[in-house]
Amino acid sequence: MTTKNKNISKLFDSYTWFVFQNKLRKKIEESQLSNPHKELYLMTAGDTTQPLPLKVVEALVDAATKLGDRSTYTGYGECQGNIKLREAICDNYYKKCGINLQSKEIFVSDGSQSATFSIQGLFDLDNVVGLQSPMFFPFLDENILAGRNKIIYLDCNEKNNFIPELPTSKVDIIYLCFPNNPTGSVATKEQLEAFVKYAISNNSIIIFDAVYSPFITDPNIPKSIYEIKNATKCAIEIGSFSKMAGFTGLRLGWSVVPFDLTIENTVEGELNDMFRVIEYTRFLGASNLVQQAGIVALSTQCQKDYQKIINYYLENAKILIKGLEAFGLKCFGGKDNPYIWAKGSEGMSSWEVFDKLFFKAGIASVPGSVFGSSGEGFVRLSTFFNREDIEKAVEKLLC
Amino acid sequence: MTTKNKNISKLFDSYTWFVFQNKLRKKIEESQLSNPHKELYLMTAGDTTQPLPLKVVEALVDAATKLGDRSTYTGYGECQGNIKLREAICDNYYKKCGINLQSKEIFVSDGSQSATFSIQGLFDLDNVVGLQSPMFFPFLDENILAGRNKIIYLDCNEKNNFIPELPTSKVDIIYLCFPNNPTGSVATKEQLEAFVKYAISNNSIIIFDAVYSPFITDPNIPKSIYEIKNATKCAIEIGSFSKMAGFTGLRLGWSVVPFDLTIENTVEGELNDMFRVIEYTRFLGASNLVQQAGIVALSTQCQKDYQKIINYYLENAKILIKGLEAFGLKCFGGKDNPYIWAKGSEGMSSWEVFDKLFFKAGIASVPGSVFGSSGEGFVRLSTFFNREDIEKAVEKLLC
Repeated sequence: MTTKNKNISKLFDSYTWFVFQNKLRKKIEESQLSNPHKELYLMTAGDTTQPLPLKVVEALVDAATKLGDRSTYTGYGECQGNIKLREAICDNYYKKCGINLQSKEIFVSDGSQSATFSIQGLFDLDNVVGLQSPMFFPFLDENILAGRNKIIYLDCNEKNNFIPELPTSKVDIIYLCFPNNPTGSVATKEQLEAFVKYAISNNSIIIFDAVYSPFITDPNIPKSIYEIKNATKCAIEIGSFSKMAGFTGLRLGWSVVPFDLTIENTVEGELNDMFRVIEYTRFLGASNLVQQAGIVALSTQCQKDYQKIINYYLENAKILIKGLEAFGLKCFGGKDNPYIWAKGSEGMSSWEVFDKLFFKAGIASVPGSVFGSSGEGFVRLSTFFNREDIEKAVEKLLC
Repeated sequence: MTTKNKNISKLFDSYTWFVFQNKLRKKIEESQLSNPHKELYLMTAGDTTQPLPLKVVEALVDAATKLGDRSTYTGYGECQGNIKLREAICDNYYKKCGINLQSKEIFVSDGSQSATFSIQGLFDLDNVVGLQSPMFFPFLDENILAGRNKIIYLDCNEKNNFIPELPTSKVDIIYLCFPNNPTGSVATKEQLEAFVKYAISNNSIIIFDAVYSPFITDPNIPKSIYEIKNATKCAIEIGSFSKMAGFTGLRLGWSVVPFDLTIENTVEGELNDMFRVIEYTRFLGASNLVQQAGIVALSTQCQKDYQKIINYYLENAKILIKGLEAFGLKCFGGKDNPYIWAKGSEGMSSWEVFDKLFFKAGIASVPGSVFGSSGEGFVRLSTFFNREDIEKAVEKLLC
């Protein structure tokens, strides 16, 4: 008799995102029933809204057209990713931050969520996992699904400026996300150095989610964990084209598993080889067409276009923060980070803050409690929006 | 101290496909050194070669163009898959076989390999897994990586016409692939009925890989496990656009987890819900652009275009079989199946058959031993080739 994976039951009844989505849907339905003409501003998902640069569209069109001709048609690509794309990630992304990586250290994926899901497969189920709290919940869910149950939460709160203190007990796998989703915080070089030092002395691994790093404009804030000395010995980094290049619907990302990364009983290069075995087993590579567009997206010209889009979102954040603050919320983030983490007055729950914004201005946010109990009292607002909608929302907030 | 997933080590040193690829690379290099002008025919991977129908290319171009305009740009889609695509899979694929499924039972994936990797996560590690041998090795590898070690092999050989007998001991999860990769066999309705009956009486699950079913031209051979009565109660099916629609490089497939599928301690609908939790955790959906093309690929017009391409590959198979038989190999498959499973004379190893074809005609095949020890003595040849190359290869074989 077949038996089920009991780990799923641990998530099943209360799968965070579904519970939130259902409640949100009900709120929207109620609003539409009572006032069908009220405009709603769904600042919930980190879903990009600005179009792709022309060159990237042309790359997609060109790749598609080639599939229609026998002389240019191609099938399967390299599972680890198009070599030109991996080289472009090394040369046009990492080298700009002064980091030297080799293309064999880059594993192209169909997005950062797939990448982190796959990465955890490198490690034994017995490892102690440390997670920032509040957190991007797939980090927790993927570990629970796999069967890990030794979880330690690293509290991120107003007091520590949403940068967790170093673990006080032994943690083997530390998930860090900077610029942070959901709290909008960024980590300084010194703060990241402390984590790398901790990881090296405790033989721990850092899984560094850097998908929002293109939003960093402050030259003193590291864009990659590898800007920190010795980080290649203890850290895996996850990158993504979703927010950097508007590829949310196209699906493209990458993982870096450095050659000199080692853990217990492994030699240099072994984890890199092990990850290749996982990747070749779990999928057959990201879409070739999308990878072709990824190469072009990393070109100097397109990076200039994308910087404009990023600045546009960051300007959205400024406008929204101004409105939220005038409305009486205390705001964090939105600088070097596309997310705003807003707090209601003392004692208000996340859903109360949600309601306040929703009923006044039709702004839907994600209650901070969705990201863990330490997010209680806050809401997360995404600034991936058209400017005029941000402006209209702010106007309604303050009228 | 972080510890590694020891299951990877079980695959690591001898990761089947890498070992084969390395040996193949050496053979090719040696051949090119001794005769740089010799043409080689790499009939190894099941890699499509014929271009996409115009309408499908237009759908890709249209979807790409829309991403370049703010008014038509879209970001994230539904993780479970575009509803129109899921409806098209129900209406234009399954209904044609007399099968009624609902769109909520379909989970769109970035290909069948990702789908099966994800599917095994539904089940406890303690289940006994039954695998056809020889087999498409990711089925084994994904279970080993997950930590399952109760594996039973269902022997497929010349005697049983490469259709395994029913398990004689208890098996909880049975992987069946028909039309079969690598042996080229197809299963009759009666043979599949016997497996469904076994699964129902033993409370087992069948994971049915149907990715080659579009190659079935014999109206008496089922294209889907759900053509068998009661199969929705015991079977998950995996489908793919790779071979059906030339999407090998685009990445699109699906899984069916029927509502009335149950296992121990589950109610109807529960496995479907559980799989949704896995899918939302492991990725954020297949590329939207590719899904748009998938919808068009399933249209009546494109299905006619695709039938021509499939007939082209099947005609390739006929020509190749004729040549291989004249060359002295005994051939199986290649009918209702794009793979030919060819046997050397008694006592010859798979690599000896490989060498015979390679040195005589420059044809590279996959030694059957790569798919498990019971594949010894055979080679697999893919017929996803341009006709003139098939003809040239056959000519060289017989000159």
